[in-house]
Amino acid sequence: MNAPLDAADGDLAQQLDRSHVFHSWSAQGTFAGLAIAGGSGTTVWDFDGRRYLDFASQLVNVNIGHQHPAVVAAIREQAEILTTIAPATVNLTRGEAAKRIVSRAPDGFNKVFFTNGGADANENAIRMARLHTGRDKVLSTYRSYHGNTGAAIVATGDWRRVPNEFARGHVHFFGPYLYRSEFWAETPEQESERALTHLRRVIESEGPASIAAIVLETVPGTAGILVPPPGYLAGVRALADQHGILVILDEVMAGFGRTGRWFAFDGYDIVPDLITFAKGVNSGYIPVGGVVIPDAIANDFDERVFPGGLTYSGHPLAMASIVAALDAMESEGIVTHAAEIGADVIEPALASLASAHPLVGDVRGEGVFWAIELVADRGTREPVSAATMGRIKAGLLERGVIPFIQDNRIHVVPPCVVTADEVGQAMAAYDEVLTTVERAGQ
Amino acid sequence: MNAPLDAADGDLAQQLDRSHVFHSWSAQGTFAGLAIAGGSGTTVWDFDGRRYLDFASQLVNVNIGHQHPAVVAAIREQAEILTTIAPATVNLTRGEAAKRIVSRAPDGFNKVFFTNGGADANENAIRMARLHTGRDKVLSTYRSYHGNTGAAIVATGDWRRVPNEFARGHVHFFGPYLYRSEFWAETPEQESERALTHLRRVIESEGPASIAAIVLETVPGTAGILVPPPGYLAGVRALADQHGILVILDEVMAGFGRTGRWFAFDGYDIVPDLITFAKGVNSGYIPVGGVVIPDAIANDFDERVFPGGLTYSGHPLAMASIVAALDAMESEGIVTHAAEIGADVIEPALASLASAHPLVGDVRGEGVFWAIELVADRGTREPVSAATMGRIKAGLLERGVIPFIQDNRIHVVPPCVVTADEVGQAMAAYDEVLTTVERAGQ
Repeated sequence: MNAPLDAADGDLAQQLDRSHVFHSWSAQGTFAGLAIAGGSGTTVWDFDGRRYLDFASQLVNVNIGHQHPAVVAAIREQAEILTTIAPATVNLTRGEAAKRIVSRAPDGFNKVFFTNGGADANENAIRMARLHTGRDKVLSTYRSYHGNTGAAIVATGDWRRVPNEFARGHVHFFGPYLYRSEFWAETPEQESERALTHLRRVIESEGPASIAAIVLETVPGTAGILVPPPGYLAGVRALADQHGILVILDEVMAGFGRTGRWFAFDGYDIVPDLITFAKGVNSGYIPVGGVVIPDAIANDFDERVFPGGLTYSGHPLAMASIVAALDAMESEGIVTHAAEIGADVIEPALASLASAHPLVGDVRGEGVFWAIELVADRGTREPVSAATMGRIKAGLLERGVIPFIQDNRIHVVPPCVVTADEVGQAMAAYDEVLTTVERAGQ
Repeated sequence: MNAPLDAADGDLAQQLDRSHVFHSWSAQGTFAGLAIAGGSGTTVWDFDGRRYLDFASQLVNVNIGHQHPAVVAAIREQAEILTTIAPATVNLTRGEAAKRIVSRAPDGFNKVFFTNGGADANENAIRMARLHTGRDKVLSTYRSYHGNTGAAIVATGDWRRVPNEFARGHVHFFGPYLYRSEFWAETPEQESERALTHLRRVIESEGPASIAAIVLETVPGTAGILVPPPGYLAGVRALADQHGILVILDEVMAGFGRTGRWFAFDGYDIVPDLITFAKGVNSGYIPVGGVVIPDAIANDFDERVFPGGLTYSGHPLAMASIVAALDAMESEGIVTHAAEIGADVIEPALASLASAHPLVGDVRGEGVFWAIELVADRGTREPVSAATMGRIKAGLLERGVIPFIQDNRIHVVPPCVVTADEVGQAMAAYDEVLTTVERAGQ
């Protein structure tokens, strides 16, 4: 069902937004956003009936597409039964959601702790790793994003603060990124080997016995869709094992279909110690995230109270949307489709784009998870300017494509259900806009 | 609409829960929870059709009662239009929700930043206070709870980490709590004055110019429903003003009707610098929270990017549920009802309970926000044991009342829509259970 459109509603939306809404990661005075009235599949539209292909999947979360009828129906049905219930209750839909998630995880992962999103999923995975190892340092890469929370539990005064006070903090290292190698590498194999040497040196220098966990996005997402080179994740696993360090794989953006697999790490030779998720698990239809926990860690908290929690953990509407989304993704072959359209349509189309446009320095990705890296000079790999990226963004919106723009990159991240025809339309828009920018001398 | 009940579903819920669900703040091996099949108003029921009065409002969040038809209808309607949209878009329902929230805030509070819950509301308020003041310390009380997040942004490697790295941290002080005074006080006035002297000394000792904010629950909730004594909050305001420190009032539990007012601080002589909310704003029907921001702070981020954000900020379903919940609370006089039933029914009933039972050491509260503090000895005020509290909890559940039990206290925190008859039923259950425990010599 689509709501009748009224352009006046779009104006009112803009006016109320400017008056009363404070936006994420934005300068509020210059914020400008589309007012979206509705959506279906890969398409959204505004209050004037203007249609856009959503090649950002909003924030790379609408994996199943907009307004999937089975997920909408599940939310509507659950809303009539029970919208909200405390986490300390037992809930059938919560059990069904957890069962579906662990069924896609490696053997031994049998429990799920549900959160409100990806940030607090990582929060709780880090908490579990620190308590499981009795160590407090956490290693992660500079090119990463793991969520925006960091103070509430320390501001908390009661006992729940105490098991979460860690004296030492977070150490950052460089991960592999061949196109802009930190290690002077020239091949993927060299990049992998040298990145592992760097990580080993950081671990040794920080003191292995002080390190609880290495947190990695399996495929770093917002940082540039940095598909790990051969052997890297297996090497991280080996280094971690050598020192009793846990590996937390952040699958918030990469998981649940984005790479053409249920979990991105299924494509690599690694089994993590903890898995975090959000976004694609229910396409963000209801805010939710979580941690998938193996018995070895879950059992730590059989007798001992787990010192973490939240009011909306395992929220019934979120759970109903997970059940419906995962069932539909399975029965409709949506994850397989993402793999196929990536290999058969997106990859060759991006290769053509790269060969046609000197602005394109690199393309990389898999499934519906691709980056086009734009450079002013292919030799120096100097990124194009922010002003150029602004023109590209505007040009794509004019052509009816919502792009995901980050630094000097266009991320090609449509819903998993995107069709070959829609990919063609978006590629035509990318092609036109890059041509225009190139003709203008960038 | 109630779902048809099937006892087998309750068994399946328990089995799936034990197999696959990891619970908040719990020892997983001994976790036991009710499987709730549905609810309406103050009542919920299990799969056997057993009914319970919810005198916990789940986690003190279901202010409007279970399954309010207007809120359920709004969620169902919005689900058909648009379930999810990125925060960087403009959304009409989001604007409508923000307008309704600021309309209840003091003059000058014109913007709302929406989060997923109370923890990240406090995260972002603290972030704003640190950036606004250029200082990093945050003061809060030992008897407080402000959420369970604290590491994700520091684990994050990209630039979004940097403006959130604060060298110094969180300092805790003692707030007023006359029944167990930290200040040897004997009257509310003395407690207030001495607690302010203590806070002044902590500020002076920490260095006023290093302190960004004092974070306070207006009425500390889980810590014991510690209604502030006369003059305390005004005194905090004056101390903060003297040193250029911001006051963040955490209204996550106390706000939106719980005290019988829209904001709890409306009952005190204080205007905060930032207000955080969650729970009651939509009764938790969809996970949501937020920060209400005055122009003086919002304007800091007109030109400068606010370094905080989240995928589900301003989620359409959450926004629709806020609009419907606040409109229904207004049109049905629900907040006024909470004030009246608190003053006319709950307060005298608790006074009777206290006079009948030597176990009751103190009762305090307002609206639908009350604590019964249980003591083994009224002279020494020694709390009753955890085992006794366990028996009390079990006894109340047997009598069809879901209690909120915390330490040695029963919090009497039903939905704002609770009727005098329902209060009577719960009081009878409290009375019977306390009698039983007293007869058994506790």
